[in-house]
Amino acid sequence: MTEMKTKPTRPLKASEVARWDRQTDVAVVGFGGAGACAAIEAHDAGARVTIFELASAAGGSTALSSAEIYMGGGEGTRVQQACGWHDSDRDMFEYLKASAGPQADDAKIRAYVAGSAEHFNWLVDKGVPFKDSEYRQRAMMALTDDCLLFTGSEKAWPFAQLAKPCPRGHNLEVEGDNGGPLFMQIMSDNVSQRGIEVEFNARALTLIVDDHSGRVCGLVVRIDMQEHFVKVNKGVVLCNGGFAMNEPMLKKYAPGLMRCSMPIGNPGDTGTGILMGLGVGAAAINMHEGFVSLPFYPPASLTYGVLINAQGQRFINEDCYHGRVGAYVLRQQGDRVYLVFGYEDYGDYEQNSYLGASVAGTGETLAELETELGLPAGQLQHSVEFYNRHAEQGQDPLFHKASEWLKPICAPYVALDCTPGRGAYFPYFTLGGLDTLPSGEVLTADGDIIAGLYAAGRTACGIPRRGEGYASGLSVGDATFSGRMAGLAAAGAGGTGDAEPKPANPDYEHDQQRKP
Amino acid sequence: MTEMKTKPTRPLKASEVARWDRQTDVAVVGFGGAGACAAIEAHDAGARVTIFELASAAGGSTALSSAEIYMGGGEGTRVQQACGWHDSDRDMFEYLKASAGPQADDAKIRAYVAGSAEHFNWLVDKGVPFKDSEYRQRAMMALTDDCLLFTGSEKAWPFAQLAKPCPRGHNLEVEGDNGGPLFMQIMSDNVSQRGIEVEFNARALTLIVDDHSGRVCGLVVRIDMQEHFVKVNKGVVLCNGGFAMNEPMLKKYAPGLMRCSMPIGNPGDTGTGILMGLGVGAAAINMHEGFVSLPFYPPASLTYGVLINAQGQRFINEDCYHGRVGAYVLRQQGDRVYLVFGYEDYGDYEQNSYLGASVAGTGETLAELETELGLPAGQLQHSVEFYNRHAEQGQDPLFHKASEWLKPICAPYVALDCTPGRGAYFPYFTLGGLDTLPSGEVLTADGDIIAGLYAAGRTACGIPRRGEGYASGLSVGDATFSGRMAGLAAAGAGGTGDAEPKPANPDYEHDQQRKP
Repeated sequence: MTEMKTKPTRPLKASEVARWDRQTDVAVVGFGGAGACAAIEAHDAGARVTIFELASAAGGSTALSSAEIYMGGGEGTRVQQACGWHDSDRDMFEYLKASAGPQADDAKIRAYVAGSAEHFNWLVDKGVPFKDSEYRQRAMMALTDDCLLFTGSEKAWPFAQLAKPCPRGHNLEVEGDNGGPLFMQIMSDNVSQRGIEVEFNARALTLIVDDHSGRVCGLVVRIDMQEHFVKVNKGVVLCNGGFAMNEPMLKKYAPGLMRCSMPIGNPGDTGTGILMGLGVGAAAINMHEGFVSLPFYPPASLTYGVLINAQGQRFINEDCYHGRVGAYVLRQQGDRVYLVFGYEDYGDYEQNSYLGASVAGTGETLAELETELGLPAGQLQHSVEFYNRHAEQGQDPLFHKASEWLKPICAPYVALDCTPGRGAYFPYFTLGGLDTLPSGEVLTADGDIIAGLYAAGRTACGIPRRGEGYASGLSVGDATFSGRMAGLAAAGAGGTGDAEPKPANPDYEHDQQRKP
Repeated sequence: MTEMKTKPTRPLKASEVARWDRQTDVAVVGFGGAGACAAIEAHDAGARVTIFELASAAGGSTALSSAEIYMGGGEGTRVQQACGWHDSDRDMFEYLKASAGPQADDAKIRAYVAGSAEHFNWLVDKGVPFKDSEYRQRAMMALTDDCLLFTGSEKAWPFAQLAKPCPRGHNLEVEGDNGGPLFMQIMSDNVSQRGIEVEFNARALTLIVDDHSGRVCGLVVRIDMQEHFVKVNKGVVLCNGGFAMNEPMLKKYAPGLMRCSMPIGNPGDTGTGILMGLGVGAAAINMHEGFVSLPFYPPASLTYGVLINAQGQRFINEDCYHGRVGAYVLRQQGDRVYLVFGYEDYGDYEQNSYLGASVAGTGETLAELETELGLPAGQLQHSVEFYNRHAEQGQDPLFHKASEWLKPICAPYVALDCTPGRGAYFPYFTLGGLDTLPSGEVLTADGDIIAGLYAAGRTACGIPRRGEGYASGLSVGDATFSGRMAGLAAAGAGGTGDAEPKPANPDYEHDQQRKP
């Protein structure tokens, strides 16, 4: 049903529009976390808002997520304070900057650090429930109604050495993995209460631009097999996801992700917002990057194990975030990766793991396991013996795994096959998107603002920029925050752009030589 | 003097041009290897050609290179045949495809494989001398006048397992590292003999486009402080290099390369061609990638050593190409890399190495060296002992280093500090550029041909696409071959594009709904 496109979507010119079917101030494309927050803020700033959602209901990828919203900084959120954590702008900034690496967007990180504790309050004000409690286990998500948890690699080397670790994942007060659906229900209720217009089953087809100024001034939407031409007075906010579900686009922009097993997100994550932006001259950046994951916990006890490559070597501190682990798995030479641990830590792996990796070997001795796995003789033995000897002392001289996860690995030994492509769950989604200012204003390659166009969530390139630096809750945190900023800017209550496109500021200027 | 820009260079409209100062059929920007070949082919196809070169002489980065031109396939080149090598299209294709990885451009590789033996003949016809001899040492370049040598990782794992190894680097018949200058002298002579117009000290400022069709129809060039408006009847060929010398552009597009020590190329490699292309709507692709190198040989004897990371682990087969080694060095965690070898292999390191790494430690025993380097106790000992035990059998179970480079490493031991940023020479240049067809025609993001515009060499994104898959001679091979293709296409003797821009082929089509 969904056509997979890789080409920029050409806009219509206003002069090509035969009739305007409807009018609004701010058109929001996509009713996930970003779109909902954009719509609410734009409405509350006085704009008439219409949301166009491809699916039959609100939700987007946010509803499918655990929604452990990443927030902190400043004096900390109410929950951080109640749980006795002292977060700081500096620590949060340094952590996010290090995790985004050389492609970090300092301005966006700074804005998020400065605003995320207030973002918590804004969410609470909208009715999002957070309990003043902490979930202390290492987990993919909190399955209780507890709130605060570590969702990234804050406590792990090398991040713990750069910034004081503080938990910033905020799980909603709801039992089970139901944060995403609850969050979107609340946002949806907020949208309804405000009387914001919503069109479901509405596929945004393309942008409409003013013939003379180039300003984005409308949107073509297909509803009930009919095309509707929507005149947009203030701005279009693209919140329709990344491109994890568009295989040709992945192949073109992020081929490295195709070694993973499963795109995560909703079926509408086909990059249509990015392609619409490209069609009006926007720049798409960081397109090769994505979140990838080897979800090898729960059970958390598997963190006591070691990850081993085809050379029988360890290659990472196993106490870091599963997404960072996934990124390093993809970098290993030789295409074989095992998780080796003692059977005593097997726990409820078969019942509760997301990993789905099969047992590749077992052994009473390391030598036996090594043979069964076909690893170079002696390497696994050395790696585990070296690890054990130091774990006994609470040390990991190689990768500085935190002492709480260090103990000797004991026989009988088990190895799970975590090699990409051999059955283990290896999800991914995309982290590249339209280049935007922190306000959500969309930029061209020369850094000019495209008047009337905004983007948020995974349609934009936001704060999370690298698989190796991802943390759960960062995408929903970024999406909801960037959605708000974009909604405000589109309504005219924020942003830095002019109402009209900036005059061209060409690199090459020689007016004196031009025709008079 | 050179301004460092990162923004696309806005084109002029033809209607803005007050006077045309000169006219030509094909304007070639840049007189390096790509530009010279483009000019010769365009001229020989009957076009009037003008070359505009920023510097005071021909050369570009090709003249600064060793010009070990990468060629083969088919029945093999004359030199390959004379030296008893049997190359094949299949082997060359598989090697290049594997080396370019997921971002390989199959069409370009296929065209190059099919045409590179003929390219050899074309070069010979132009006077480029190749001796029917082979240089059998492992080296960065041949310092004798011998021709054929392995310049990539063809003989190394995992490539040797995918395709039959065959040497494809063709060194010119000249003593010393003088292939590049000789090559460009010969090309320059060819240009002169043909009476092709050349303007030196000529800075291309921007493209000129037809107001109505959008076709590239001219070029503004600054010569003697004066701007010249050049009417171009057939096509502009951008051959003015990559962007290794433009730090802000590197920071924007390829921040990972900035951990290297030294950009290589000529001072004009500031990305101006790429920015001019972007200014007329071209797509730039693969912009994050680059050639990087840890030139740890000569002396070739250092290949008997092992590369060790901060964990005291080996991480690569040391017999692969220095560029592949460089790419893997940048991936290591912990930011320390040593080359460890026996003093017996030290050879003429101090006289003839390009590496410039300082001795980080020495030891009569591995334990002593390990302590001196501050590596985790026991790791270096294990790694070298494991290596030695198998090297004695001619085996490397970890990384499958070829047996010719395997022998036990003996005391006294030496370690060179190869950590990025600690003094070792770590050169780089860029591998991203304008998206082109094999014909050199430049594409927009939606895959349409930009009429009148061509690109070649490092201004385009060519065959070499990844640091980890680079081979010496691939860039000069690609530049000279792609230059020829672009020159032919610009002269109207090749290419697939129409004389006029293709009609728009929008993803979104609903003409029936448009204003009649």
